Amino acid sequence: MVNIGLLGCGTVGSGVVKLLASNRDVISLRTGQGVAIKRILEKDPEKVLSLGLSEDVLCADIKDILDDDHISVVVELIGGIEPARTFILQALRKGKNVVTANKDLIAVHGQELLAAAEENKVDFFFEASVGGGIPLIYPLKHSLGANRIKEVMGIVNGTTNYILTKMSEEGLEFSRALKEAQELGYAEADPTSDVEGYDAARKIAILASIAFNSRVTFENVYVEGITRLSPLDIKYGYELGYVVKLLAIAQEIDGRVQARVHPAFIPMHHPLAAVKGVYNAVFVNGDAVGEVMFFGRGAGQMPTASAVVGDIMEICHNLSHGTTGMLGCTCFEAKEIIPIDKVESKFYIRMLVKDRPGVLAAIAGVFGSHQLSIATVLQKTSGEEFAQLVLVTHRVPESDLRDALMVLGEMSIVAEICNVIRVEGEDSKV
Amino acid sequence: MVNIGLLGCGTVGSGVVKLLASNRDVISLRTGQGVAIKRILEKDPEKVLSLGLSEDVLCADIKDILDDDHISVVVELIGGIEPARTFILQALRKGKNVVTANKDLIAVHGQELLAAAEENKVDFFFEASVGGGIPLIYPLKHSLGANRIKEVMGIVNGTTNYILTKMSEEGLEFSRALKEAQELGYAEADPTSDVEGYDAARKIAILASIAFNSRVTFENVYVEGITRLSPLDIKYGYELGYVVKLLAIAQEIDGRVQARVHPAFIPMHHPLAAVKGVYNAVFVNGDAVGEVMFFGRGAGQMPTASAVVGDIMEICHNLSHGTTGMLGCTCFEAKEIIPIDKVESKFYIRMLVKDRPGVLAAIAGVFGSHQLSIATVLQKTSGEEFAQLVLVTHRVPESDLRDALMVLGEMSIVAEICNVIRVEGEDSKV
Repeated sequence: MVNIGLLGCGTVGSGVVKLLASNRDVISLRTGQGVAIKRILEKDPEKVLSLGLSEDVLCADIKDILDDDHISVVVELIGGIEPARTFILQALRKGKNVVTANKDLIAVHGQELLAAAEENKVDFFFEASVGGGIPLIYPLKHSLGANRIKEVMGIVNGTTNYILTKMSEEGLEFSRALKEAQELGYAEADPTSDVEGYDAARKIAILASIAFNSRVTFENVYVEGITRLSPLDIKYGYELGYVVKLLAIAQEIDGRVQARVHPAFIPMHHPLAAVKGVYNAVFVNGDAVGEVMFFGRGAGQMPTASAVVGDIMEICHNLSHGTTGMLGCTCFEAKEIIPIDKVESKFYIRMLVKDRPGVLAAIAGVFGSHQLSIATVLQKTSGEEFAQLVLVTHRVPESDLRDALMVLGEMSIVAEICNVIRVEGEDSKV
Repeated sequence: MVNIGLLGCGTVGSGVVKLLASNRDVISLRTGQGVAIKRILEKDPEKVLSLGLSEDVLCADIKDILDDDHISVVVELIGGIEPARTFILQALRKGKNVVTANKDLIAVHGQELLAAAEENKVDFFFEASVGGGIPLIYPLKHSLGANRIKEVMGIVNGTTNYILTKMSEEGLEFSRALKEAQELGYAEADPTSDVEGYDAARKIAILASIAFNSRVTFENVYVEGITRLSPLDIKYGYELGYVVKLLAIAQEIDGRVQARVHPAFIPMHHPLAAVKGVYNAVFVNGDAVGEVMFFGRGAGQMPTASAVVGDIMEICHNLSHGTTGMLGCTCFEAKEIIPIDKVESKFYIRMLVKDRPGVLAAIAGVFGSHQLSIATVLQKTSGEEFAQLVLVTHRVPESDLRDALMVLGEMSIVAEICNVIRVEGEDSKV
């Protein structure tokens, strides 16, 4: 019998309790042993009692779990940095294996935690931290291990994907779509972490670290959120054959690593374009396997519990064979991070310009003088003083584009540079 | 250093040799040791020499590999039942770990081979046998282990998917599309195993055995191929909002298991509908995780080599920790197989009927008297003697439908029952 100490009995914690109960039979068949929740650290007793658990399971002090030698696995589902970090470190140092879904923590303190696990020869697993129940970390570390991973690209935040789907399909403004998402419980009261891209940035930092065997932290990820997107951009993008998504992208280029999160136009026929609502999907491009995609619900009580219990079961296997701590940190290298200025992308640029002859030539001239090649022009003449002008560039260095935009912004014929959106996924062969 | 004995140096075998060479650095970083091909059993020396390997590597007798105590992993890529089965059994009994991509063998003799591996405390891995390089078996056994799997459904044969994509997009007849596939090397000279669904049946037998922890063999799978599909069915299906795919489906229903391969109409918005050409995709529906999908190239030299080398690396880990044989056979139960007659499906039925009043009423009457409820009727009156009549039923038991078709087939107003195609995937929430 493997005994669990659970830290936090909120949405995911309750899901773990429920799943261990409802699938007790298959879990014990597959692991060859029983798994039981022995203690739950939770301030609100009602959360524990309402699951039908006895009051004896409840505890108010982390010591009750740390000092219990019968507990071999600690499951941290409190979230946030502290006290989660301290509790996990204490548990690892006590020789307990740890499972967590805490992306905020891993994306910043992953190195410290993995090192502590290694020192104490215990497992520290976090499959649930990215993509909810979608198997991602495990297949990346194991099944795809023979590949030099070139790119990981995906939709890893369900809240923003729901908002963008609403904006795209119903022409809603961002603020209106956000409000609907909040009403349905898909977005939190303070949506900052989701809509500003921070949540996605933490997830891509974790995936990049594993894919490239080199530490990528939250601070290394360039981030832009979706708050500035307008229905007009979505409409023009559609005319150009694109769908907008909040993409998390990590690439290894000549031995260096680049990671970023930003809204991006992708071709309508790209498989990620079909990923709607709260679903997540991640493409992995390996030099041998080519492009593979993992798709599913990236959040939610039971999908996340599925990943947490999957990790617990892996620890059960390792416990019964005396092999915990076998797979520790895989950041064997220290690859340089490429700053966003050095990244080459295709860009969609929407401007409000004076609607008169010669304007397009003048603007094109600025692009030309910065060595920026234009692929497509979409001009929306309205007969008014100003017209919408949309340009799509070929692949150009970000710094060169910024220089050109600086010049354009000061031209009298340019009333406003309304939006700049990267274009991705056109090289995919899928 | 882990030494490999390779059986067969054809397409996939050469891919394995190339991948071990080209990614030597990441493979040794990730496994903590070197991996080398020590011996290759191959009749055609040119295949080995053309890879730049020395003649010393070549061997003509399996004994040279079996009796070499420095070889700890045997990679079987000969294919077919014999001599592959005997070679693998001999290797396992010699205490060697085995990796294979041989679906024909696993789908029939999996039990015997896994038992031999268990007895000898060695690993026997076969990730490459299903879905090429797409991680499937590993995530099913590990990451999704907490789930009671309800269904596995997917496109697991690239050849037929290429043919059906061609037929759908260009209106080609089956025979023409097959010819194109053969010219491009996507279909073999004898395409039987692919187009009759046998290849897909072997793969779903393997996936079902793992998903449901109960042995499902090739013989347990109901199989229909794609040879009878006509462009007319594809056209009418399109009018009804469907796309045709060769689906492999396995379900657990009330503790019993059902597995089948047949052409099926799926809704156009279903994610599997977007899987085109030689790509594969598999949906797994677990009670906690919901629907997750795995997508990628289901065949080809390097994708398949990716899975084979992934398995080799897993064995390297296990060898260095003395834990080979830890994960043996997972068919802990012996669930009953549900015969196809007892399966409930929605059916599309296309008939050629006399084009005169009262005919539809008479046909509908036959369905009614068999308790078969009709969902949709599509009648194509042509002004000629006969008209095309398409009916789509609600979910009905297969045996009842067959009884009704028997009666219809004998009616003078029915010239021909042209095709019967199941409709799947309408319950998906994705």
